[in-house]
Amino acid sequence: MGGDHGPSVTLPACQAFLAAHPDAELLLVGRAEALAPAQGWARCRIVAAEEVVEMDDPVEVALRRKKDSSMRVAIAQLRASGEQPAAAHACVSAGNTGALMAVSRYLLKTLEGIDRPAIATVLPNERDRYTTVLDLGANVDCTAEHLLQFAVMGAALVTAVEGTAQPSVGLLNIGEEVIKGSETIKRAGERLREAGERGLLNFHGNVEGNDIFKGTTHVVVCDGFVGNVLLKSSEGLAAMLTSFIKQEFTRSAYAKLAALVALPVLRHFKHRVDHRRYNGAALLGLRGLVFKSHGSADAFAFEQALNRAYDAARHRLLDRVHEGIREILTAMPAAPDDTVAEPQPA
Amino acid sequence: MGGDHGPSVTLPACQAFLAAHPDAELLLVGRAEALAPAQGWARCRIVAAEEVVEMDDPVEVALRRKKDSSMRVAIAQLRASGEQPAAAHACVSAGNTGALMAVSRYLLKTLEGIDRPAIATVLPNERDRYTTVLDLGANVDCTAEHLLQFAVMGAALVTAVEGTAQPSVGLLNIGEEVIKGSETIKRAGERLREAGERGLLNFHGNVEGNDIFKGTTHVVVCDGFVGNVLLKSSEGLAAMLTSFIKQEFTRSAYAKLAALVALPVLRHFKHRVDHRRYNGAALLGLRGLVFKSHGSADAFAFEQALNRAYDAARHRLLDRVHEGIREILTAMPAAPDDTVAEPQPA
Repeated sequence: MGGDHGPSVTLPACQAFLAAHPDAELLLVGRAEALAPAQGWARCRIVAAEEVVEMDDPVEVALRRKKDSSMRVAIAQLRASGEQPAAAHACVSAGNTGALMAVSRYLLKTLEGIDRPAIATVLPNERDRYTTVLDLGANVDCTAEHLLQFAVMGAALVTAVEGTAQPSVGLLNIGEEVIKGSETIKRAGERLREAGERGLLNFHGNVEGNDIFKGTTHVVVCDGFVGNVLLKSSEGLAAMLTSFIKQEFTRSAYAKLAALVALPVLRHFKHRVDHRRYNGAALLGLRGLVFKSHGSADAFAFEQALNRAYDAARHRLLDRVHEGIREILTAMPAAPDDTVAEPQPA
Repeated sequence: MGGDHGPSVTLPACQAFLAAHPDAELLLVGRAEALAPAQGWARCRIVAAEEVVEMDDPVEVALRRKKDSSMRVAIAQLRASGEQPAAAHACVSAGNTGALMAVSRYLLKTLEGIDRPAIATVLPNERDRYTTVLDLGANVDCTAEHLLQFAVMGAALVTAVEGTAQPSVGLLNIGEEVIKGSETIKRAGERLREAGERGLLNFHGNVEGNDIFKGTTHVVVCDGFVGNVLLKSSEGLAAMLTSFIKQEFTRSAYAKLAALVALPVLRHFKHRVDHRRYNGAALLGLRGLVFKSHGSADAFAFEQALNRAYDAARHRLLDRVHEGIREILTAMPAAPDDTVAEPQPA
């Protein structure tokens, strides 16, 4: 039901997803009448939920008032109850991010040893691959321990979804040298290096903002404030450049002609940087797989979010995160002072 | 002497600058033999300095060992001594940023009431204007008071260099609502709102990463960690997109033909986003005007840094910053707890 377009986008995406994945089953959660077009689809069941969390609903409304929301019912499908296994392996929503995180935390709880869940997304890089970045806004302040946990979770995500065996991890900083950054970042660097030396993680070292788009490492970890600014400023810069290119190619009769000639080339370029291709952020650290599609996603983009959730479930992302965190906790218990600072929710 | 290219870039830039500004005088500081081509230029004097701070010299070397470096001697030209007025109104360097800030702080000291100097640069925006962003890496942690001071200094810079009377200021955050962000950011928002209500500042409110490139406000303030990540990731994204466009336009014979046809359009686009046009970051909060050119600047870019320094000096940037800070300190003295957290140098 969520996102800017609701079922007019999500239903066609689900149909395409089902066609492409003959072993997949879908539970569609929402208002029966809105989901009626899906009635009778093979490997698809409609789960009724009368309420909808609106894009601008405060977290409290999603959490306390709309108890029969499609978001909440969908997330609840991930919970086993007693002998009954969970109805679904993963949940995908295009709804309100803050509400999705809050309801997921409330219903699913965090994995043992995880202080705070994180949001991970991918950004394109010069190597024509993706760089996974986390956290993107779930936690405005982070301790060194949180950043270490983000590294473990991000690496597990890349292994599960992209099949990379030992994904490299970079710590986002303002210089490559270990003496750079705040006390928290320096301490995080020490913990990450230790994890690297113990073979628990493929830690590359500090990386800088440009390394994300160079593709220096598979994973880049940062606190949610920095990650959010980074993501939104990148979106803003890309939007500005796109608008400038459009303006230039419509500025004169000659420019319009040039645009016609250059169209196949520009299309190829556009495809290459098409953010719809990597839609689907992962909420990591929960006892269930929750993926967040961009609210403005079209059917193609929403299908990619479904694909990412499907790959994550099929390649046991939840177990991988759980195992990774358990290894770290056992081998490298946190010093008391690393867990003192209590960050605030975004 | 500084930057990747030294006098082969800076001398032609100085020559062009002198030609364009008949009332300007230049002191060229560096090795006599390197600056020999400038001998005999009108309105230009060579000040000998035997040593050079290398781009990879640690700050300590610039500060304690190379006491006759061109950087140090150039900055010293900004100091009045006894009855003797300062020899120069502004200093421009393409050298090592960390060293430039450290030597400037040491020789010039900060203005009264300024805890920490900041580095401000401009980024292009969709309105075909510039957004001034600070801090860009001088201070990894900032208190609310620092962010307030950055706002005052950034506004003074925009007024001096761009002639905007009441530049609007945004506080970089992860949402527009006042409840967003860390405790420091929320406190900074309160202080900035208060300054706005008192008419000391044109405070717009919180802005997000994309607002920088939308041009929502003239000035955006953030701590140096966030600013540095933002700047470097934007550079990285721009570099990636440029390289993709180049690759696409050389991929095939047809693409190369299309490139020829589209060349005038692409040139216009390139000019519009040419970062050389806005080269020249300001070191603000010091008792002297110091500008930092990008190390990789060519002659055109270095000339822009000279232009910015010239405009800043001509329009009394130093006095404006001083007055702005004095007003704020008088009208809104800092609460003791706002100045407690002592940030670390980058």
